[in-house]
Amino acid sequence: MNAVINEQSLESYMCQLGAQAKAAAAQLAVADPASKNNALLAIAEELLAQRDALKSANEKDLAQGKEDGLDDAMLDRLTLGDKGIDGMVEGLRQVAALPDPVGEITDMDYRPSGIQVGKMRVPLGVIGIIYESRPNVTIDAASLCLKSGNATILRGGKEALYSNQAISACIHNGLKAVGLPPESVQVINTTDRAAVGLLLTMSDTVDVIIPRGGKGLIERVSKESTIPVIKHLDGICHVYIDDQANLDKAFDIALNAKTRRYGVCNAMETLLIAEAVASEILPKLASAYREKGVELRGCEKCRVIDADILPASEEDWSTEYLAPILSIKIVDDMPQAVQHINHYGSHHTDSLVSENFTRAREFMTTVDSSSVMINASTAFADGFEYGLGAEIGISTDKIHARGPVGLKGLTSQKYVVFGDGHIRS
Amino acid sequence: MNAVINEQSLESYMCQLGAQAKAAAAQLAVADPASKNNALLAIAEELLAQRDALKSANEKDLAQGKEDGLDDAMLDRLTLGDKGIDGMVEGLRQVAALPDPVGEITDMDYRPSGIQVGKMRVPLGVIGIIYESRPNVTIDAASLCLKSGNATILRGGKEALYSNQAISACIHNGLKAVGLPPESVQVINTTDRAAVGLLLTMSDTVDVIIPRGGKGLIERVSKESTIPVIKHLDGICHVYIDDQANLDKAFDIALNAKTRRYGVCNAMETLLIAEAVASEILPKLASAYREKGVELRGCEKCRVIDADILPASEEDWSTEYLAPILSIKIVDDMPQAVQHINHYGSHHTDSLVSENFTRAREFMTTVDSSSVMINASTAFADGFEYGLGAEIGISTDKIHARGPVGLKGLTSQKYVVFGDGHIRS
Repeated sequence: MNAVINEQSLESYMCQLGAQAKAAAAQLAVADPASKNNALLAIAEELLAQRDALKSANEKDLAQGKEDGLDDAMLDRLTLGDKGIDGMVEGLRQVAALPDPVGEITDMDYRPSGIQVGKMRVPLGVIGIIYESRPNVTIDAASLCLKSGNATILRGGKEALYSNQAISACIHNGLKAVGLPPESVQVINTTDRAAVGLLLTMSDTVDVIIPRGGKGLIERVSKESTIPVIKHLDGICHVYIDDQANLDKAFDIALNAKTRRYGVCNAMETLLIAEAVASEILPKLASAYREKGVELRGCEKCRVIDADILPASEEDWSTEYLAPILSIKIVDDMPQAVQHINHYGSHHTDSLVSENFTRAREFMTTVDSSSVMINASTAFADGFEYGLGAEIGISTDKIHARGPVGLKGLTSQKYVVFGDGHIRS
Repeated sequence: MNAVINEQSLESYMCQLGAQAKAAAAQLAVADPASKNNALLAIAEELLAQRDALKSANEKDLAQGKEDGLDDAMLDRLTLGDKGIDGMVEGLRQVAALPDPVGEITDMDYRPSGIQVGKMRVPLGVIGIIYESRPNVTIDAASLCLKSGNATILRGGKEALYSNQAISACIHNGLKAVGLPPESVQVINTTDRAAVGLLLTMSDTVDVIIPRGGKGLIERVSKESTIPVIKHLDGICHVYIDDQANLDKAFDIALNAKTRRYGVCNAMETLLIAEAVASEILPKLASAYREKGVELRGCEKCRVIDADILPASEEDWSTEYLAPILSIKIVDDMPQAVQHINHYGSHHTDSLVSENFTRAREFMTTVDSSSVMINASTAFADGFEYGLGAEIGISTDKIHARGPVGLKGLTSQKYVVFGDGHIRS
């Protein structure tokens, strides 16, 4: 599998991928919507046709993974069964059905000089994506980049090498079938970790890097990359129950935000409650959480109300559990809640439950997060729920894209100016 | 002037500036439009009141500059006379009159779940700006950042230290007069070059870096910064005169794009002409350019038409002259022109002159530049002309902001979600 690397140095291999991607990007940028959509559908057909080959490649990875002592959770993420293949096919068809972001012209205004000035949406160019074990990310990432007119260089987890190469073959066949360059999507064909370091500094050919995975991966990428990175670090999301909250809504939202799914970045990790309503709402919530098996860790004031809540440490306030654990803090008022959120949070998603208009307006303004919600569960922070169609990740940066990143987040804009022989005086 | 640095290490001084800027940014982000505008107007009044102090500080810089052997062009850029002070005052008043970008909520849509999702415009946070000799940049940059709710750390040219400190005092007095934190705008009070290196790596407190100046400065900043950079490198702008151009329009545009001003980034540096019309248009243009004192350097085909055109070297095609020099190339057709532009250009601004609709559409799509124009002079590539009100620079990057960067380019967006107790199923 790594044969290609034995024949040439890793550096020249990576340079070649970069140059090929750049050339493909120029073609993709002007490809019409139909050919990109046809490519997505052709890739889907190819995945269905190659179902057996995909499963046997995946079995090789699984066998190797077992030998290497991967734990059950890792092996589960690595597994690509019929359900996983059907999911990839369905994802490709959904992306094909989305509106094409490229070429959209907006804000076309007449200026006093007589020229017309507008903005046209264009692809970013070449996107490098670095991810971990799940092989279906190969299709997710490739399809969003292809639809948005970008070439991609993909670097998956080493555990998934055979699966990713099998998926890559399907992608290439699909691209070829519709006459788009197969180099539009290239999966790095080596497990050498040095390839990542090279990818992160190929600023001549790569326009943006998107890491998808755990905190360690994302921190390494952010630190080493000389190319702009679209990333999110962690999701320490809060719900604050105000003393003017409707407590029925508060109960539903606080329960949903924590227990809908535990291992997702939009799950609530810390619940903040105004002191005035804590003795009424906390016991009801605590019993509902316990019924679901959620471990509760709280401040001293929480433990006065419910002695079975474990004491929270300072570290709890800045921990993303991704597990059935919740930290709870009783605060004096909303300013104290906002201060806690901006200090301990990760600027991902935070929600206020309150019927008070002025507080809603203030929370929306003062909470510095990529999604700020009023009377809604943090679980809604998601590309599908926001109407983006699909997402490549959720950005907690402020530069370029923030919040769920969909097709538009993978594009840029250029100005277009129309005149009739206009010159500037 | 450097006293502060003698008392503490440069590193702790820079850290302190960063921490102060971050604290100020949190206040500025929620400041209402009136207080920001009042601050801009108060700074303008302060500049007028301190006219004599500003001029005498500037004279100190000029005296030092002469002693250090600065050339006349440098001394000219450094000079801050009555006209320069009046220009800064006028600039502040214009920025105060612009609409406030912060807090704008757009795209507020109902989603099938019943939640409402929109985007709210918010400041970036802390912006570091590194620039060269012109002291009026201190006011330009500070006013745009202040209006967009961002704190700034400014690092001006060492030649302008006294002038910048005098301007900084006016800014602080203006901010204090309206009750905004004076640390909203901080001018680095040392000429130590190491301060720039520190600023470029203060990713905990600085959100974005904007270099303004020559290519050397911008390349150094791009290379060293671990913080996102909004920059433009150079402006190698083209006009292509198509064989289906209206040659009267072509003449006016080609003349205006080169000769309106020579030292600006939106000036045309290379003129491309379709072979079919070259013998008709080139002699007229060549004579008009010569009348204006423009030196012409052309390809072999140009020199067949006009033997007085100097031969262009390969290097000419990728040179930003910023001077009355023009390179001219005769091409077969539009695809060859587009290929030349994308290969040799700097992705700044390029214009097609043609009456043909299909070619206009193709040029707009295939030219990969921050501004693509049809039948208009490249001289229009400018924040004022585009209706942005003012600009901090012109970005040739694709990430975050592209083309002229105005107030919106200095902001980000966050998602806002309104519900009525909504939970996700």
